[in-house]
Amino acid sequence: MPPVNAPYRPEGLTARPLHARIDADAVAHNLARLRAALPAGAGAPRLWATVKADAYGHGMARILPALRGADGLAVLHLNDALACRRMGWQGAILVYGGLYSPADALLVDAPGLHLVITHAAQLEWLAQAPLAHRPAIWLRFAGDIHHTGFAADDYRAAFDAARALSRRGLTGEVGHLNHYARADEADGVGNADAVFRQVIAGLPGPVSTSNSAALLAHGARAADTQWVRPGLALYGASPFADRSAAQLDLRPAMSLHSQVVGIQRVKAGAGVGYSGAFVAPDAMRVGIVTCGYADGYPRHAITGTPVIVDGVRTRLLGRVSMDMMAVDLGPVPHACIGTPVTLWGAHGLAVEEVAASAGTIAADLLAGLNARVPVQLASQDSAR
Amino acid sequence: MPPVNAPYRPEGLTARPLHARIDADAVAHNLARLRAALPAGAGAPRLWATVKADAYGHGMARILPALRGADGLAVLHLNDALACRRMGWQGAILVYGGLYSPADALLVDAPGLHLVITHAAQLEWLAQAPLAHRPAIWLRFAGDIHHTGFAADDYRAAFDAARALSRRGLTGEVGHLNHYARADEADGVGNADAVFRQVIAGLPGPVSTSNSAALLAHGARAADTQWVRPGLALYGASPFADRSAAQLDLRPAMSLHSQVVGIQRVKAGAGVGYSGAFVAPDAMRVGIVTCGYADGYPRHAITGTPVIVDGVRTRLLGRVSMDMMAVDLGPVPHACIGTPVTLWGAHGLAVEEVAASAGTIAADLLAGLNARVPVQLASQDSAR
Repeated sequence: MPPVNAPYRPEGLTARPLHARIDADAVAHNLARLRAALPAGAGAPRLWATVKADAYGHGMARILPALRGADGLAVLHLNDALACRRMGWQGAILVYGGLYSPADALLVDAPGLHLVITHAAQLEWLAQAPLAHRPAIWLRFAGDIHHTGFAADDYRAAFDAARALSRRGLTGEVGHLNHYARADEADGVGNADAVFRQVIAGLPGPVSTSNSAALLAHGARAADTQWVRPGLALYGASPFADRSAAQLDLRPAMSLHSQVVGIQRVKAGAGVGYSGAFVAPDAMRVGIVTCGYADGYPRHAITGTPVIVDGVRTRLLGRVSMDMMAVDLGPVPHACIGTPVTLWGAHGLAVEEVAASAGTIAADLLAGLNARVPVQLASQDSAR
Repeated sequence: MPPVNAPYRPEGLTARPLHARIDADAVAHNLARLRAALPAGAGAPRLWATVKADAYGHGMARILPALRGADGLAVLHLNDALACRRMGWQGAILVYGGLYSPADALLVDAPGLHLVITHAAQLEWLAQAPLAHRPAIWLRFAGDIHHTGFAADDYRAAFDAARALSRRGLTGEVGHLNHYARADEADGVGNADAVFRQVIAGLPGPVSTSNSAALLAHGARAADTQWVRPGLALYGASPFADRSAAQLDLRPAMSLHSQVVGIQRVKAGAGVGYSGAFVAPDAMRVGIVTCGYADGYPRHAITGTPVIVDGVRTRLLGRVSMDMMAVDLGPVPHACIGTPVTLWGAHGLAVEEVAASAGTIAADLLAGLNARVPVQLASQDSAR
């Protein structure tokens, strides 16, 4: 009997024919692909692989071996950093979430940590903590996203305070970090980067910019950047609305698979799913697939969202329910109970496409994969 | 070091000030409330408490003790049923998902199981399995939702086949099950129930209908029903767009809590969050809250979605990101770093309201709570 406060998940193999497949080799490929987009040579920027949200839903423990080629990991909070250490990661770790309270500073006492500092009190908390290991710190500029960090008017005072701590040996090196609000837009980086560079002009210390979109669209700009921080693209999804992962030579690291578990022959005018959100225009054959929003498939997905049945592209019908969804079997007349279904990540169906049909982004779907979905690891032989 | 194929979750207390609070007493209250909506006396329908999706995200192990007053549990698949047995549940268990393959029938060999049968092959699989314990079976009518089950034209043949198995001792009693597509609509049950009753007219065996919405809106209709199957309302959410949980005397069993972890003073015209989806009309004070879509907060939530900061109702600003969101601190000028934030389920903010602002339903948010969010159990003393 599990402890009362632990989430339940099925033990062993489950009867339900739904599973995600995680391909760590794809992550290794994508990492190499992102490296290739950066300036090469002695001044080449280093790369933090972002593994927030349990490696975007792929599972940190599954993905870490594929990230041996990264210079560091970027995580959300200190507990995540300690977990990476327990999983055997020896390299640098950047902690985005940093310190939430004075007591958190005590968790920093481990070698190789880099802390993002977003407000002045965090510097005080750090200075007062009795630490054997002092983290490198990165001041976050509020930039154009305004999700934590120092405003332009406050940045230099924060830098002076941080530098003073560093000189007293209370922190390691002080760097400068920015995050773009619009890196996926064609003109989304130029002005934001210019503002940031003006704020830090003349200040010593390394610079970190560039998520996946900035790196892929503006890799040359990274010549003035010491550390980049891709996330989404490592997992094989495109950050751009107008360029696919395949076009970017990125390989999906997660695919989601199920089966047809029921066949409904509905008459013209009959509704399918809750509220009759889809009404059959003619008599049609509908497949019921065991996967629903409680598995992490988006309930916002609309009729027409692509679904692959036995390798054939067809479409979702009506509203996704908690545990199942309906698909059009018109293009797959041979489909029967047990026919395999791919919901994303294989057979040419990118998770980005499903996300777009649901009015959201790939990271939302990947990170939202529910713990109840069993995961299979792709073997190296079948990783392509 | 955790096994490589297990999802990572933070161990022990995390530094991040985000947690869900689960109140099992509220579930016990809601169960009693649903009982009261049903006809009383000798013919009163029995009640299956639906605990699919890990008890709608609340955690089966946490909730089962509060369901002692239920006549049975309803789960998705056979592994879930076996897990309930391991957690100490001795009563009846209804398995919605039933059998996906012939081999699954071997999992049925436990006392007290009720299997939903949705297609004819499942009866064959069951008949051929060498079982010591024979489950009761429920034929699912496809009804007006067409998510698995027998069409009206096929229902009687299925019943005859099932009855023949039952007479040979290969299954237990044969019942009739229907699920409504529109129970939350004022006229959503009458016609659907009439069609169902016509299909089963004259057939022996118990009848099961009525999810939360049907039970609360049409409780008297349950007089002809032997088993009802509420889900959502057990967890304290209203299934109706026009009636709140409070109006229905339902108490929320989950609340979600975080803190302000950053303050941004933005200028007029500045964007907040990705893509500048919110632009400040005037200079304003914005709170950054550590909770994002990777925690299960809906990325579809729009500017204006209600958020409670230190007991004061204010609003979400711009796009929710993976780990954080921005809120308007205009109505809470005293808010500072560390100020408590309620995202749903307390201080009068129902999860249904947040769901509506995100274009979805409460069950989507509850079941979507991510495994990375730590859970605290409400003590009996503070359960109100």
